[in-house]
Amino acid sequence: MSSPKTEGMTAKKSENFDEWYTQVILRSEIADYGPVSGCMVFRPSGYALWESVQKATDAEFRKLGVQNTYFPLFIPERLLKKEAEHVEGFSPEVAWVTEAGNSKLEERLAIRPTSETVMYEVVSRWIRSWRDLPLKLNQWNNVVRWEFSHPTPFLRSREFLWNEGHTLFATKEAADDEKDEILGIYKMVTEEYLSLPGYVGRKTDQEKFAGAEASYSIEYLLPDGKAIQGPDFHSDGQRFSKAFEIVFVDEKGEKQFAWQNTWAISTRVLGVMLAVHGDDRGAVLPPMVAQTQVVVVPIVNDENKEEVLAEARKVAERLGASLRVRLDERDHLTPGRKFNEWELKGVPLRVEIGPRDLKASQAVLVRRDSGTKRSVKLSEIVGEAKMELDEIGKALFQKAKGFLAENTREASSLRELESGLKEKGGIYRILWCGRKDCEDDLRKSTGGKILNMPLGQGTPKGRCIFCGEPAKTVANFAKSY
Amino acid sequence: MSSPKTEGMTAKKSENFDEWYTQVILRSEIADYGPVSGCMVFRPSGYALWESVQKATDAEFRKLGVQNTYFPLFIPERLLKKEAEHVEGFSPEVAWVTEAGNSKLEERLAIRPTSETVMYEVVSRWIRSWRDLPLKLNQWNNVVRWEFSHPTPFLRSREFLWNEGHTLFATKEAADDEKDEILGIYKMVTEEYLSLPGYVGRKTDQEKFAGAEASYSIEYLLPDGKAIQGPDFHSDGQRFSKAFEIVFVDEKGEKQFAWQNTWAISTRVLGVMLAVHGDDRGAVLPPMVAQTQVVVVPIVNDENKEEVLAEARKVAERLGASLRVRLDERDHLTPGRKFNEWELKGVPLRVEIGPRDLKASQAVLVRRDSGTKRSVKLSEIVGEAKMELDEIGKALFQKAKGFLAENTREASSLRELESGLKEKGGIYRILWCGRKDCEDDLRKSTGGKILNMPLGQGTPKGRCIFCGEPAKTVANFAKSY
Repeated sequence: MSSPKTEGMTAKKSENFDEWYTQVILRSEIADYGPVSGCMVFRPSGYALWESVQKATDAEFRKLGVQNTYFPLFIPERLLKKEAEHVEGFSPEVAWVTEAGNSKLEERLAIRPTSETVMYEVVSRWIRSWRDLPLKLNQWNNVVRWEFSHPTPFLRSREFLWNEGHTLFATKEAADDEKDEILGIYKMVTEEYLSLPGYVGRKTDQEKFAGAEASYSIEYLLPDGKAIQGPDFHSDGQRFSKAFEIVFVDEKGEKQFAWQNTWAISTRVLGVMLAVHGDDRGAVLPPMVAQTQVVVVPIVNDENKEEVLAEARKVAERLGASLRVRLDERDHLTPGRKFNEWELKGVPLRVEIGPRDLKASQAVLVRRDSGTKRSVKLSEIVGEAKMELDEIGKALFQKAKGFLAENTREASSLRELESGLKEKGGIYRILWCGRKDCEDDLRKSTGGKILNMPLGQGTPKGRCIFCGEPAKTVANFAKSY
Repeated sequence: MSSPKTEGMTAKKSENFDEWYTQVILRSEIADYGPVSGCMVFRPSGYALWESVQKATDAEFRKLGVQNTYFPLFIPERLLKKEAEHVEGFSPEVAWVTEAGNSKLEERLAIRPTSETVMYEVVSRWIRSWRDLPLKLNQWNNVVRWEFSHPTPFLRSREFLWNEGHTLFATKEAADDEKDEILGIYKMVTEEYLSLPGYVGRKTDQEKFAGAEASYSIEYLLPDGKAIQGPDFHSDGQRFSKAFEIVFVDEKGEKQFAWQNTWAISTRVLGVMLAVHGDDRGAVLPPMVAQTQVVVVPIVNDENKEEVLAEARKVAERLGASLRVRLDERDHLTPGRKFNEWELKGVPLRVEIGPRDLKASQAVLVRRDSGTKRSVKLSEIVGEAKMELDEIGKALFQKAKGFLAENTREASSLRELESGLKEKGGIYRILWCGRKDCEDDLRKSTGGKILNMPLGQGTPKGRCIFCGEPAKTVANFAKSY
């Protein structure tokens, strides 16, 4: 807990989103800048957000039989080069270790930007027969991608934290079946824990993961009208298994290459969540992930101090049995200062207890998201607080869903798309012929790109927004981070 | 689960410890070598060990008000140099990033060997008044120390996983009070979860952490008679706070430097555990940390197959409600092969169910540590299995404690110490005058070193084993990893 140094917000979300975002994450004490540009610090309340996401996601992975592992940080250069598209995609942003102690290394070592190459070299030794499959591995770790353009904490960080799932199957069908399971977990966690709605879809061939046959993503919309990619799932087919000779003997005794998938959710989703829910008073944290869910603030004067404090402690203890609760007993700050500080930090629910409340055997619940105040009986406060927290999570999701719906539009001509992106931003549903040329031209003329293509759509009726040929797909299009 | 490729043990622990250790960790499928020398792979059953240690330890940290954080992997060279002893201690084993993408970096970046320097630069901005203290931070992460001598998985790994606690206090007294709390947690976790006994004590000035005022450790004895350092705690005094200007205003309004501690437990303890408990049939995992605590093996022939399998499934399900259980239904392996495989992998308890057991409504429990077999009624199997697991954890600890006691001896002369270390190995209690010269000479003449000095001892009666001057302390002395 900080001393009165805490600075409040000055930037407005609607006026200067970038400055507002920076203020929110720094002044709420969720994150800080590290000494190396683009490498952020997760302060305790920021890291707690990630721990909540991790815990929820990991529990779901385990239900699918996924096992956690840990593979080395370093990848020898020769390994990174084994899959051609993969190295081409990642090498521009690899950080290289070239020296150790006072010695120059014989071979450069990449800091993992992702672990396919270091894992598959090893895993190929673990698999011999169809009985060894499926093999579902996952790791929670740090990776480094040396972005050269505008690093932004959480959203575009040179080092970030994530899960990387790497699964191997005996057949294409078994591998494909995993897509809905994993995307379902990511959707559930981002919706229920982070209150974030997004669009699930398939990436275009151009935008897919370096080395994948097909990539799928959840795309989010930020308050500035730009989109950003969230968790993703990649069908790698047999590309890596061929490059790394991951071979098994099938039931008929024949040698086969394994079918592989990879999938990830990263700390970027925390930045999206902070950007989407925050307001001009600071962070607004969804209750499922907030380090502190409820703060109890006693309102005391000299006469009633002990009495009020005693009750506040009792209330905090009762709430604390099933919720993450903080009692703010600091006596050098006024209640108003405390309210501001906890609002800035995004604590979902505040409980105020003053002398008048005490007489009436009640307390006041104040919601961070809406500012709504409501008196509740002390005897019922635990149930009431839980109900409010549940409501807050849902309300944040509904509000974000409303924003996403309002800012998702259809564009039926290039001109409409161009002017729409320029004037309003947001996501546009467009029809596309599926050709790379049109995708490139659309990008050049609008500055936006195809985010992904909704799943389960039939062939749409209509024509490509760019070339006028018959459309093959509906696509989500936006300017993107 | 692997196909019949599994290789059994061939090396004997008592004959060739090094080869035996390598076989145990590789063939039990606990670990594997990564493509970079000294960087190991934690396979699922190995990583599960660490997750158990992490979970238990983290829960204890939280009770002390410790908060988890995450600081960057990279430390700019100028920062690493800020505390003189610290950089001198670590720079010979730092891995350096010098290039990113196709660019040469302007300043070399160290991969953190430990995070003091990168953390304190940032944390100094978070503290202004005594009200901000204590600040108790921790991170669970990966660190790199580029050891040049004989990397060994877990025991001496170039990349390893650990916790690093970094705590800041307003007074020396408050900082000192934390020592027993943290060492107590490490002792509890290593004893109760890993069944590992060790000696707690203070390191000599020469052996303390680079940058600390005083270091404390738990030292373990390996089966080959060499000692190895486990978890540690460092009183850093004001050294780092002076180098990084971590200053606060005390209650009197005066500026003060913070008092700091750091503390860590690393994946090395897993190697110690595997080395201490394993036997010539493979790994022996303590039940509290084993990924699989109980394996159920049905013993079937063609007539009774379905009946026995049905009961085995029922038993596995009942046990699985409160234990980590695996049912081995593979039909291409004989029960004998399965027994060997699970013994190699160290699963603490095996449940065998065959047709005769079925008739008698019983099953056989077989302990991995002792090989003891015992029939129990199916109706009581859950309670019986839990009791056995509890017994196994205790028995492993008692056995290890016996080994440690048998191999801890007193040496009252240099000659006795020299010949003892040479012929028997183990740990020697010696008297020491406290002077660096004698410590150096002892090291030179014996090849061993002072591990640590037991806490809470008064000034001993007697004379330094080397120089014959009055002794200042009892010390634990051994050849060490």
